[in-house]
Amino acid sequence: MKVGIFGTGGVGRTIGSRLVELGHEVRMGSRTADNETATAWAGGAGERASHGTFADAAAFGELLVNATSGGASVEAIGAAEAADLDGKVLLDIANPLDFSNGFPPTLSIKDTDSLAETIQRAFPGLRVVKSLNTMTADVMVHPGSLSSSHDVFVSGDDAGAKAAVVDLLQALGWPESDIIDLGDLSTARGAEMYLPLWLRLMTALGTPAINVKVVR
Amino acid sequence: MKVGIFGTGGVGRTIGSRLVELGHEVRMGSRTADNETATAWAGGAGERASHGTFADAAAFGELLVNATSGGASVEAIGAAEAADLDGKVLLDIANPLDFSNGFPPTLSIKDTDSLAETIQRAFPGLRVVKSLNTMTADVMVHPGSLSSSHDVFVSGDDAGAKAAVVDLLQALGWPESDIIDLGDLSTARGAEMYLPLWLRLMTALGTPAINVKVVR
Repeated sequence: MKVGIFGTGGVGRTIGSRLVELGHEVRMGSRTADNETATAWAGGAGERASHGTFADAAAFGELLVNATSGGASVEAIGAAEAADLDGKVLLDIANPLDFSNGFPPTLSIKDTDSLAETIQRAFPGLRVVKSLNTMTADVMVHPGSLSSSHDVFVSGDDAGAKAAVVDLLQALGWPESDIIDLGDLSTARGAEMYLPLWLRLMTALGTPAINVKVVR
Repeated sequence: MKVGIFGTGGVGRTIGSRLVELGHEVRMGSRTADNETATAWAGGAGERASHGTFADAAAFGELLVNATSGGASVEAIGAAEAADLDGKVLLDIANPLDFSNGFPPTLSIKDTDSLAETIQRAFPGLRVVKSLNTMTADVMVHPGSLSSSHDVFVSGDDAGAKAAVVDLLQALGWPESDIIDLGDLSTARGAEMYLPLWLRLMTALGTPAINVKVVR
């Protein structure tokens, strides 16, 4: 599958490299076509990796991944041609973290709205699915790296789009039993508002290599 | 130990009954001395159970528990004589849930503040510790009732107060290894902002008998 990734940060590079490893073709998009980080990533990630502008990544991908910082997401996706978004699944991994007052960040969108819903409203042609935003990048792509099983959440309004993301999660190594469908896209409010707890857990435990298992 | 509980809801009654079972003397406080729920609870919970006003509960307890609804907490605790709060540990289990727009509720305090910090500022003589607010009452007092181990969080500025709450948690059946000290009282922001995810998990999984285990 051809995948277009918005964003060149740690999440975009980690997901991108893993998808290339799994045999997918990945184009990483950024503000400018000659972004140094994207160029270096594409040079090192193998022949199925490429880079370009946000618009290039959107045109290339059959499935799109939002791995920008939350405050930059709408502008980044808005750089795409509308026709290149229409009907496509967007896996939204971003969090609306506001670091303007330092660490820990606050949330720029919360409680009565979410970043995922904001993106869906701004780009109604997309089929937005929130997932993977509740953990660090290495855990997203190597779920088996923790000491026991743990869960990933999925939120979205489109059943077909959620199924496509679940397929992708399983390809990344997530057992079906560790994938929890929270419901419609508004449930992303819950997944995004978990971040303040995640940040405190990371600080208290001294490692970002953590995730939660829902125990019944 | 003598324990004063603010609030007559499910959390107050469940915690109160369990503390009585464990041998503690418990006084449940409410707005009026003749509250029907508190009267019925005290009548059924055994001779170490009693009830009275919020002020009565505060005067009685060596350790205090806030189990009111979040929007009513400051007023309830404010009904106590200041001298009856001074130096006492307050275990704050409440969440700042706002149901005025239906279910799921939003949070009336969040992100740059927490209910726990609000209570601490309003009553500087208290030693506030946030804990147990991330699960349903039955799980709080019967942690062994779930299928495998899971965690409880503790936030507070006073090490001695946190130690007293950890002792209480262990008496309730929480193994030390399942008690995570998140840090100072501001970390309660994380524990309170987890509630929106908890509410969606309860809905998606069809049961409130859930909690999370932090996996490393």
